Amino acid sequence: MQVMKKKYNKKCVVLLSGGIDSSTTLFYVKKKGFNPQCLIFDYGQRHRKEINYAKKIASYLKVRYYIVKISLPWKGSSLLDRNLPLIVKKTKNTIPSTYVPARNLIFLSFAVSFAEAISAKYVFYGANQIDFSGYPDCREEFINKLQKTVDVGTKYSIEGKKIFIKAPLLNLSKEQIIKLALKLKVPLDLTWSCYKGDKKPCGLCDSCKIRAEGFMKASIKDPLLK
Amino acid sequence: MQVMKKKYNKKCVVLLSGGIDSSTTLFYVKKKGFNPQCLIFDYGQRHRKEINYAKKIASYLKVRYYIVKISLPWKGSSLLDRNLPLIVKKTKNTIPSTYVPARNLIFLSFAVSFAEAISAKYVFYGANQIDFSGYPDCREEFINKLQKTVDVGTKYSIEGKKIFIKAPLLNLSKEQIIKLALKLKVPLDLTWSCYKGDKKPCGLCDSCKIRAEGFMKASIKDPLLK
Repeated sequence: MQVMKKKYNKKCVVLLSGGIDSSTTLFYVKKKGFNPQCLIFDYGQRHRKEINYAKKIASYLKVRYYIVKISLPWKGSSLLDRNLPLIVKKTKNTIPSTYVPARNLIFLSFAVSFAEAISAKYVFYGANQIDFSGYPDCREEFINKLQKTVDVGTKYSIEGKKIFIKAPLLNLSKEQIIKLALKLKVPLDLTWSCYKGDKKPCGLCDSCKIRAEGFMKASIKDPLLK
Repeated sequence: MQVMKKKYNKKCVVLLSGGIDSSTTLFYVKKKGFNPQCLIFDYGQRHRKEINYAKKIASYLKVRYYIVKISLPWKGSSLLDRNLPLIVKKTKNTIPSTYVPARNLIFLSFAVSFAEAISAKYVFYGANQIDFSGYPDCREEFINKLQKTVDVGTKYSIEGKKIFIKAPLLNLSKEQIIKLALKLKVPLDLTWSCYKGDKKPCGLCDSCKIRAEGFMKASIKDPLLK
């Protein structure tokens, strides 16, 4: 984990999806003394339900949030297109059908724009490259390159200031993230992971599976399944 | 100019604002044998009028276009906030008030997403770093870093494919761009530059001034002022 020893009482931007990772990231930065403002994206995702969970998490922590509504005129993902099957047998090294083209690049671009507009120095997101679906935009390599882009592409960069993009959960396993969430008192019953977005988690999609394995390894019962 | 000698009869994405640079870029790639699809952004800009010009240009060339509507919950720019003055005396090396935080990062992120969704290999935009307002996200350095980000952050990149981000007008002067536009038969009366977006161009904003100087140096009368 990228531990920051100093406490910053400063504005930061957090991408909040309503899942465990982004919620834990939010609680983590709050604990570190940041003053977070969240961006929640409404981008036509099948599991629109997660937006309500994100709102609940932000409200629980009494932090400000903004909904960014994006109407993509294209799909290219089973997470956006209900005609495509969500669960496809995955061959090794292929990217799942739920991958949304350049999603994190889009979300982080908005976050950087927001950070610059409100003079925040940090952008946090809950990317994780250990127990993840193999999305290319959740990997350290991507974050590092994007950081270098932001370092030359903003007004801040011309003025000699910097916006830092941080993913504090990047190298934690799902088990470790769940344990951290418990330590930080994240109300996990207010988080949502299932891509289907039905009444109950489907238990079969990638996101459900990764969540279930994390809870199992942490020897904790998922409060959503109680 | 980044000249591409080979002709590609391939899909590409073009960012189209309705100004001279993006319109000329569109005509340029069409001439090069590409099959362009345009993205036009409706992001709360003061000069919303440019959207209609962008539509006219795309329709004139009979190319497909999509409007991407973005509701930014923040401003941080005189181009988004009508309470801020558009024309501010500029001190050297400062970024004008019309700079929109991370705008091109956001627009290009959408373009990359679109390119991936429709299997296009190229994204074109009309950035220019010669006669420009000093926006950091119009510079070659920014494009190069973003290219490296896209090279590791997309499904394409995992599959060993690539999306190229190209700015063919990057190192042309406004005079050269206008001459190229004429050569390519761009209907310049269907382009709009003024940030104010009133009935007639204001003649005083940065965008009007750069346009006027370009026409003057090219010894051509701006058809919008006829």
